[in-house]
Amino acid sequence: MYSFMNDYSEGAHPRILELLLKSNLEQNIGYGLDTHTEKSKEYIKRLIDNDNADIHYIPGGTLTNLLVVSAFLRPHQCVISADTGHINVHETGAIEATGHKVAVAPAVDGKLTPESIQSILDYHCDEHMVQPKMVYISNATELGTIYTRKELKEIRKICTKNGLILFLDGARLGSALTAAPNDLTMADICQLTDVFYIGGTKNGALLGEALIISNEKLKADFRYLIKQRGALLAKGFIMGIQFEGLFQDNLFFELASHANSMSGKIATILERCGYSFYMPPCTNQLFPIIPNDLLGELSKSFLYSIQSSIDKDKSIIRIVTSWATTQKSVDSLTDFFLNHSIKTDMDIRNVGGRG
Amino acid sequence: MYSFMNDYSEGAHPRILELLLKSNLEQNIGYGLDTHTEKSKEYIKRLIDNDNADIHYIPGGTLTNLLVVSAFLRPHQCVISADTGHINVHETGAIEATGHKVAVAPAVDGKLTPESIQSILDYHCDEHMVQPKMVYISNATELGTIYTRKELKEIRKICTKNGLILFLDGARLGSALTAAPNDLTMADICQLTDVFYIGGTKNGALLGEALIISNEKLKADFRYLIKQRGALLAKGFIMGIQFEGLFQDNLFFELASHANSMSGKIATILERCGYSFYMPPCTNQLFPIIPNDLLGELSKSFLYSIQSSIDKDKSIIRIVTSWATTQKSVDSLTDFFLNHSIKTDMDIRNVGGRG
Amino acid sequence: MYSFMNDYSEGAHPRILELLLKSNLEQNIGYGLDTHTEKSKEYIKRLIDNDNADIHYIPGGTLTNLLVVSAFLRPHQCVISADTGHINVHETGAIEATGHKVAVAPAVDGKLTPESIQSILDYHCDEHMVQPKMVYISNATELGTIYTRKELKEIRKICTKNGLILFLDGARLGSALTAAPNDLTMADICQLTDVFYIGGTKNGALLGEALIISNEKLKADFRYLIKQRGALLAKGFIMGIQFEGLFQDNLFFELASHANSMSGKIATILERCGYSFYMPPCTNQLFPIIPNDLLGELSKSFLYSIQSSIDKDKSIIRIVTSWATTQKSVDSLTDFFLNHSIKTDMDIRNVGGRG
Amino acid sequence: MYSFMNDYSEGAHPRILELLLKSNLEQNIGYGLDTHTEKSKEYIKRLIDNDNADIHYIPGGTLTNLLVVSAFLRPHQCVISADTGHINVHETGAIEATGHKVAVAPAVDGKLTPESIQSILDYHCDEHMVQPKMVYISNATELGTIYTRKELKEIRKICTKNGLILFLDGARLGSALTAAPNDLTMADICQLTDVFYIGGTKNGALLGEALIISNEKLKADFRYLIKQRGALLAKGFIMGIQFEGLFQDNLFFELASHANSMSGKIATILERCGYSFYMPPCTNQLFPIIPNDLLGELSKSFLYSIQSSIDKDKSIIRIVTSWATTQKSVDSLTDFFLNHSIKTDMDIRNVGGRG
Repeated sequence: MYSFMNDYSEGAHPRILELLLKSNLEQNIGYGLDTHTEKSKEYIKRLIDNDNADIHYIPGGTLTNLLVVSAFLRPHQCVISADTGHINVHETGAIEATGHKVAVAPAVDGKLTPESIQSILDYHCDEHMVQPKMVYISNATELGTIYTRKELKEIRKICTKNGLILFLDGARLGSALTAAPNDLTMADICQLTDVFYIGGTKNGALLGEALIISNEKLKADFRYLIKQRGALLAKGFIMGIQFEGLFQDNLFFELASHANSMSGKIATILERCGYSFYMPPCTNQLFPIIPNDLLGELSKSFLYSIQSSIDKDKSIIRIVTSWATTQKSVDSLTDFFLNHSIKTDMDIRNVGGRG
Repeated sequence: MYSFMNDYSEGAHPRILELLLKSNLEQNIGYGLDTHTEKSKEYIKRLIDNDNADIHYIPGGTLTNLLVVSAFLRPHQCVISADTGHINVHETGAIEATGHKVAVAPAVDGKLTPESIQSILDYHCDEHMVQPKMVYISNATELGTIYTRKELKEIRKICTKNGLILFLDGARLGSALTAAPNDLTMADICQLTDVFYIGGTKNGALLGEALIISNEKLKADFRYLIKQRGALLAKGFIMGIQFEGLFQDNLFFELASHANSMSGKIATILERCGYSFYMPPCTNQLFPIIPNDLLGELSKSFLYSIQSSIDKDKSIIRIVTSWATTQKSVDSLTDFFLNHSIKTDMDIRNVGGRG
Repeated sequence: MYSFMNDYSEGAHPRILELLLKSNLEQNIGYGLDTHTEKSKEYIKRLIDNDNADIHYIPGGTLTNLLVVSAFLRPHQCVISADTGHINVHETGAIEATGHKVAVAPAVDGKLTPESIQSILDYHCDEHMVQPKMVYISNATELGTIYTRKELKEIRKICTKNGLILFLDGARLGSALTAAPNDLTMADICQLTDVFYIGGTKNGALLGEALIISNEKLKADFRYLIKQRGALLAKGFIMGIQFEGLFQDNLFFELASHANSMSGKIATILERCGYSFYMPPCTNQLFPIIPNDLLGELSKSFLYSIQSSIDKDKSIIRIVTSWATTQKSVDSLTDFFLNHSIKTDMDIRNVGGRG
Repeated sequence: MYSFMNDYSEGAHPRILELLLKSNLEQNIGYGLDTHTEKSKEYIKRLIDNDNADIHYIPGGTLTNLLVVSAFLRPHQCVISADTGHINVHETGAIEATGHKVAVAPAVDGKLTPESIQSILDYHCDEHMVQPKMVYISNATELGTIYTRKELKEIRKICTKNGLILFLDGARLGSALTAAPNDLTMADICQLTDVFYIGGTKNGALLGEALIISNEKLKADFRYLIKQRGALLAKGFIMGIQFEGLFQDNLFFELASHANSMSGKIATILERCGYSFYMPPCTNQLFPIIPNDLLGELSKSFLYSIQSSIDKDKSIIRIVTSWATTQKSVDSLTDFFLNHSIKTDMDIRNVGGRG
């Protein structure tokens, strides 16, 4: 049984674990004030091309999201999110628990647009409604899609025009930035947002998200807020060491590329076999449409999740690859689909062998 | 330079790190639903002699404290704490940020008593004041003292009589239970409280506190709350594996005993050298009273913290040992004090050599 | 200029004001513990046919809504509302400010149904999402529609089956219960809900909503919560006196009937004149569809609000009547529409004269 | 039986009630945007000598306090209060329910000083503790004492120096400003604070506190916050009309003077009779020390409250006068004490007759 359920089934990439081992009996200052953390931040600052950014490591994505929203909004202000946004659906009301409404815009492909943001601004017109003050986007999105440079610049523009803080959830930023159609750099992301984070948990670390605050006005007192929400780890250095591992060389991008490469191979075969996708394959999350008849058989050998039902015959499933996904497991999965093609065998062989 | 600042300066005990290494490329189910977590809970259930307890692993102490208080209190209810209680002072208002007041009782030795609890109950008499509903104690306390079996039973009694939830913060429970004067077992703690936790962070783990809910009425839906506060780690299994390491054999207690043994040696020498203590030495935190003249010299070789000033001549400092404290560093520290004895040399030599 | 903007433009009904005058220099106990409040509650208990209900007077509707939701839900639980529900749109995130998400169901006519509730229950399936625990409905709804006895019983049924608290916002309950198609009594409302309120502000009082908690499990400590949210008026007796006025005889229903009668007359003429309605006229709120060309002219003599735009030619406007609406103002408004009929004059005269 | 329990036992001063009557059937715009409210604000602006201040009417004191604290503090910031401060003790954790800690300074006479504020600033030194950002004082205090001009200026100075917002709770500001030893004007109060309020509820209105924000930086969006906390009354004009009544002429100060005059008479007799006071008599709250033996007899004719027990023989009681206190009731109370003098009859007659 092999799991394509998510990108956090394994521990840390061996090179990261090695660093933890090597420094294990060193004495480090607590609460992220250690030299490993310092050093790792230097690597990140180089990458984002911003020496003045404030960087904080937070144990997980939900903690990071609730921290950012509650730190920067006044009580009557809300955050705008796509309906599929992680903060809207899959965080058990973590944002609302800090007192803020999530104003939701429909978004078929998981992405906000200037138009969808504008329609929320138009609707919220007086003091009887919450006041939109932040835009939350994720890249890659919860549907595996990514923002182009042009799209992100347009969102930046409407944010600037309306005094909105632009916050990018980068839990899967590695996968987004190494996707084939991507035209954004880490430095672009930093420049175009007010605050964003680089996910470690889903790209090779045991835990940890690197939160980067570039907007000067948002920097004050952030460590107070980290502490208050319980996000200031005593042994903060274990995150610092891991981000050292991810960014001292190219490891972060290598791991994300591997995940994308694995999902790309699966997508190619699925397409060859006649399967269509809910969203065009792009990053390490695939959303193929599968006959319900096949689900039982698939479940015998693989873990995956069912995203939603299309109709009584078909469902959208989610297949996720990661830095740890093996070629062997990909072969095994693609073999399964080759054996359950919805085209004829001949159709498939004609377009070429297994990728 | 050696640090006696705290008990979280190093990584994990090597035997724990080894388990992380060994299982690193295994695929585990996310969010703490994996088999390592399951197994580690079995070990703990045996230790607390309670098969029905609910056990959850939470990344840190402040997160655990704010989770417990906000999960079990209604909005108008407060938690009673000693004035020195960690939730009252050192968590940046984490409890209040969830909407609850901390009702504070003065406590010279860091401990609550039936009398101090009763006085808070007496004062809060009607709906114009918050309603006390939970008692928070820590063992060992923030001053290194511990509760006796008799004391804890008396607190249980007043809690039961008044419908109060008894919550024990066990961030340093290992050190408490292995202290020389201790007469409590882990099973006692479980039986006498409604909810408590066993600290991993300060006793050999990279991170993680094992929260144990024994009161049936408090169990429902706790995972929702963990998720909402951002405390549900995607790779929850990294805590499960570590608690497996701590409790599959006696490691947890061995590590705490080591810390106590190291602090005991330091305390013995300090006493021999004529130093007195703010609180009688008992667990891995020592609070000796040191002439201000000596602080500069001490700081040249050791990290420690200043607890508070006694007068213009003397201060209380805090010295903390841990599972990782070496005999060599203890020797070095005790040598320092032997060389800066406030008794005559002869006095000291007469009572015996270095422990 | 006459205002049909809302049902809270005037002070109190003269018979209520008279009671305030009469008792003005009496000394009354504070915080709603006075004899007027006591007496008025007896009147209400008779009306709802429930001697054991707990009754509390709250200054306004938003305060009542936020109090009820935050008093009865645990932090991870949400309240289900129609998308048009007042708590979802027009209370500046008051519910979210207490920490709870509003789970929204689309509802064309402002009403929830067992099906729309079930779809929200189905969606929220695990601890990564909030847990639905309360259903919020308003009667009359924000679109002027009302629930039938059958509809309310079906909602009660799905609530009971799923352990959901049923909360009815009765800011305009008077208008609902005196509407022509209504088949519910105040006692029915009390029996079929767990908690509901009877709006005073919009039906003849200066301020005040009578909150009625019939579910035994929800009664404990509610006065603490009222105080905590700032809703416990020092001079609570001024609400008690007003509810005495509303319920010592039939005044409450007389006032609501008057409002409905006034809106009924307007609706009849509008229909005769060829206007259609966004929602069928029923209570004291009308939502006629008006050519945009006419809005300027209408605004010269009347205040009203624009609900939303239909297309470039037509808008939905909102016209509200109240206990204080005069026949003269209604005549003046109906004359306006008779003079701006979108049928021919002949059509109108044929169906009959002004109501 | 006559009540000296509090200053909110009666309705409104007859001249205020008359204004409500007179305007009762007028149509007014909702939510405090009416012309009465506008006019009353003009009167207040003249009084405070500040045309640019923002003024908002809030139904009650606790609502005002929780609004101000939660509107102006970021989540990690706290408000400093005297231990006797209303927000610390008698508001059921209303401040904490908005997420903020109240940092408490001991204050024997109910007043903060630069020293007590400084000691709290000194203590809160890093991100592990909340950050003091607001100072809350009440004038008159909860013990009936008042601030002098010099004292208030010194508090302003330390606030300015440390970037602290100075917030003055004026629930009993009328009584303070008309007290014999007072040397502050309403304009001084406005100039020396960032935000304060003038209590209507305890000085002749049915309900309502006039909140005045003079600090430009605090003005933005306050109506959103009022709405969110449920404090934006639909019929806001009923507060506007009442403040018109209080401030169109000198009524506000006349009423407060009357209350002080009544308490002054009681105090004089009590002193003559040999009673001492917990706090020196000054405003409309008196705190005489009474033998426990006398309490039963006193309770037969008067309502009052017991503040606290001194020892087994004596208690501090609280006697409150108001705009509505009659000379007859004062005579009756003073007769009681003259008949229960703890001096000899001769002592008393010698110093003079009843005031």
